[in-house]
Amino acid sequence: MGNITEKSFKGKDLVSIRDLSKEEILFILNYAKKFENYRGNLLSGKILATIFYEPSTRTRLSFESSMLSLGGKVLGFSSSSSSSVSKGESLWDTVKTVEGYADIIVIRHPLEGAARLASEASSIPVINGGDGANQHPTQTLLDLYTISKVREGLDNFKIGFLGDLKYGRTVHSLVQALLNFDCDFYFISPEVLSLPLGFKEEIRAEGKSFVETENLLDVLSQLDILYVTRIQRERFPDPMEYEKVKNVYIITPDILKDVKKDLKILHPMPRVNEILKEVDKLPYAEYFNQSKNGVTIRKALISLLLGVTL
Amino acid sequence: MGNITEKSFKGKDLVSIRDLSKEEILFILNYAKKFENYRGNLLSGKILATIFYEPSTRTRLSFESSMLSLGGKVLGFSSSSSSSVSKGESLWDTVKTVEGYADIIVIRHPLEGAARLASEASSIPVINGGDGANQHPTQTLLDLYTISKVREGLDNFKIGFLGDLKYGRTVHSLVQALLNFDCDFYFISPEVLSLPLGFKEEIRAEGKSFVETENLLDVLSQLDILYVTRIQRERFPDPMEYEKVKNVYIITPDILKDVKKDLKILHPMPRVNEILKEVDKLPYAEYFNQSKNGVTIRKALISLLLGVTL
Amino acid sequence: MGNITEKSFKGKDLVSIRDLSKEEILFILNYAKKFENYRGNLLSGKILATIFYEPSTRTRLSFESSMLSLGGKVLGFSSSSSSSVSKGESLWDTVKTVEGYADIIVIRHPLEGAARLASEASSIPVINGGDGANQHPTQTLLDLYTISKVREGLDNFKIGFLGDLKYGRTVHSLVQALLNFDCDFYFISPEVLSLPLGFKEEIRAEGKSFVETENLLDVLSQLDILYVTRIQRERFPDPMEYEKVKNVYIITPDILKDVKKDLKILHPMPRVNEILKEVDKLPYAEYFNQSKNGVTIRKALISLLLGVTL
Repeated sequence: MGNITEKSFKGKDLVSIRDLSKEEILFILNYAKKFENYRGNLLSGKILATIFYEPSTRTRLSFESSMLSLGGKVLGFSSSSSSSVSKGESLWDTVKTVEGYADIIVIRHPLEGAARLASEASSIPVINGGDGANQHPTQTLLDLYTISKVREGLDNFKIGFLGDLKYGRTVHSLVQALLNFDCDFYFISPEVLSLPLGFKEEIRAEGKSFVETENLLDVLSQLDILYVTRIQRERFPDPMEYEKVKNVYIITPDILKDVKKDLKILHPMPRVNEILKEVDKLPYAEYFNQSKNGVTIRKALISLLLGVTL
Repeated sequence: MGNITEKSFKGKDLVSIRDLSKEEILFILNYAKKFENYRGNLLSGKILATIFYEPSTRTRLSFESSMLSLGGKVLGFSSSSSSSVSKGESLWDTVKTVEGYADIIVIRHPLEGAARLASEASSIPVINGGDGANQHPTQTLLDLYTISKVREGLDNFKIGFLGDLKYGRTVHSLVQALLNFDCDFYFISPEVLSLPLGFKEEIRAEGKSFVETENLLDVLSQLDILYVTRIQRERFPDPMEYEKVKNVYIITPDILKDVKKDLKILHPMPRVNEILKEVDKLPYAEYFNQSKNGVTIRKALISLLLGVTL
Repeated sequence: MGNITEKSFKGKDLVSIRDLSKEEILFILNYAKKFENYRGNLLSGKILATIFYEPSTRTRLSFESSMLSLGGKVLGFSSSSSSSVSKGESLWDTVKTVEGYADIIVIRHPLEGAARLASEASSIPVINGGDGANQHPTQTLLDLYTISKVREGLDNFKIGFLGDLKYGRTVHSLVQALLNFDCDFYFISPEVLSLPLGFKEEIRAEGKSFVETENLLDVLSQLDILYVTRIQRERFPDPMEYEKVKNVYIITPDILKDVKKDLKILHPMPRVNEILKEVDKLPYAEYFNQSKNGVTIRKALISLLLGVTL
């Protein structure tokens, strides 16, 4: 991979977290620190296009906030109903058109592979803002950035993943990314929502072990990071099954009585009821900081891909 | 209340016009004069989030114009369908997230109390851009600003409120705000849409009297300000009732034959047919200026709440 | 018309391409060259309002890109559902309001004549971004700009129009504009979609002739410019009729075997299948450049109408 510098990223796309080597990830996380409190005109005159084929306020606004904080400008659309899609235009043509309007594109699309196609069509950098159940690499970067901030690094910690580990895109990507680092995995979910076999094999292939359990309390006191995700009723073939497990996986102040004092709880958000609001004011709650870290990491990423750096 | 200065407002919210004392209102109105023709970079690097859970082009664009004219930036959403609400996220969480993306928030929401809740969730200033039938304080400020411009002050004038005085949020707030000042009230409406008793009692409690009538022509020639609102057919239990009154409350050039020569007609807009277009070119028509004043007063308010002042 | 200078356009509207004389068109096309690579702060502090009563991503984003590239700002709405239209406000009132928020307006509306009405209501410049089947003058300007770039002028070339010449708004406007110049027209379409008689008479009235054919291959090898438009199935009273012609009017690499080597293919976009994607990489494909030229010409136009020039 050679020596990584700020210029290594210029003109590149970010479609999947797997496009990035461990060294590249570490470079980005380290570079992002410069952007924690940065507001300025670094990207003055540059334009970000947000082409969102399905609504995602959080991701869209986070990218917009990043670009605006760097002095750049933003244009785009926030759902396919307000785009030329309704006239039958292909994604390819839309991207070929939008590359004439902007300097960098963030795409969100309900279909897997859409972001890869967009990156092939485009001569300007493309960032995947989520393509269906597939990838959402800036979510993974902000998760990694959050962990590295609270742990002062990405090694030597125990991370528990809670909730829907079967369908959870953010869990899958984060697990894959963390395989580059030295941490212990705990997977906590009802059996019907457990981590797919493929991921477990990947972990073993790296010579690592993991703990799998249906009972949060079995492992909670050992964890440094608890990554909570939403369990959706619709995922359960049998409603009775859902009723049985739903309350076991809700984080309350009570359940946190015996945790490590520097435990941090993460959540990709939005949450529904899987973390009670009463938890927000406890020192364990890191999810709103995590969300805010998304602006920081996206500032860094846009800067790198545009090749205009601090 | 102590001495009011520009710094008195820094970091505050504006949820209800009742949050402001008479002195604060007068301070804001006076401070706003500086912004009449101001275009510049006062708020360069600052970001306004417009989180609109129901569409309101006028209010949203007015705030956006204000922020952009001050050199600031804007992000947000313009209806709940394009937000994470559809994923079940609570208002509280959305606000906690958006405060990580911006420096000040304007919220519009169909439910009373939503803006107060948002102000409690947020660590950055929140402005209520309308919460259901409840409050829309910047509308009241722009109404007051308009009156103070055309009257050169807020005392010694006769103001008539016409139309739907029962449900009209803007009327209620403006009446309450004007209780701080020395003016005479005239309430003109069909009986079924007359001002609720509570407001009348508030007026009497301030030791003031008012005139109430169903007949505009009884009082029109005495008025300095005529504040027109829309009468909605749906408000009438009996359609016959509506048919009877609808033409009595339409402002035509004809009806304005004997008014004071410096009468000014205001309207919170949008109008449907309650003021004929032919009135637009008469010197009495002030409603488009009033709308434009909304940009000025909002510039001043954003500047004060952000604590970055001219 | 007198001597045309940059100042000739200040404060004007652009509702129809017919509002512009040949000299004015040439002035704009020449002036636009300055904007090809321009990014800067020429319009710093200026605000463009995009009031779009029907979605049109391409036109809206192109205008926004133009304004942002000039250092200006943008506000507006992208469909009537997110505007006060739903509250029954007239176009007139919306325009009178928006002129208080911005320095220049682009309007898109499904009804013919809407842009003219807006230009009458507004005291600030109004650009027609498409009003129903009527006019879309900046499309025509970008078409002319594209031709003048590839031909180094607007005289001495053979242009073929292909597809739906009966309803195609862009074709009609471009033909009318080209009557000012010296070029040869070829109209290629199924008979049911042929150019309306009125346009043919206009051409003859200018003392020009034209070729009309149903068979592209009859004329393709003579053309310098081929302007392709979409044929919509719905235009055919008889589906059999559509089936017969649809494949004759699809541009493939094969069909382009014997064309002039500097033939350029234009298309107002979006395309569906009337130009195969395989054609994109051939030197004849000019349509994505054409789309990009839209940003350049709109930059020039906004600059001229605002009277802030390079």
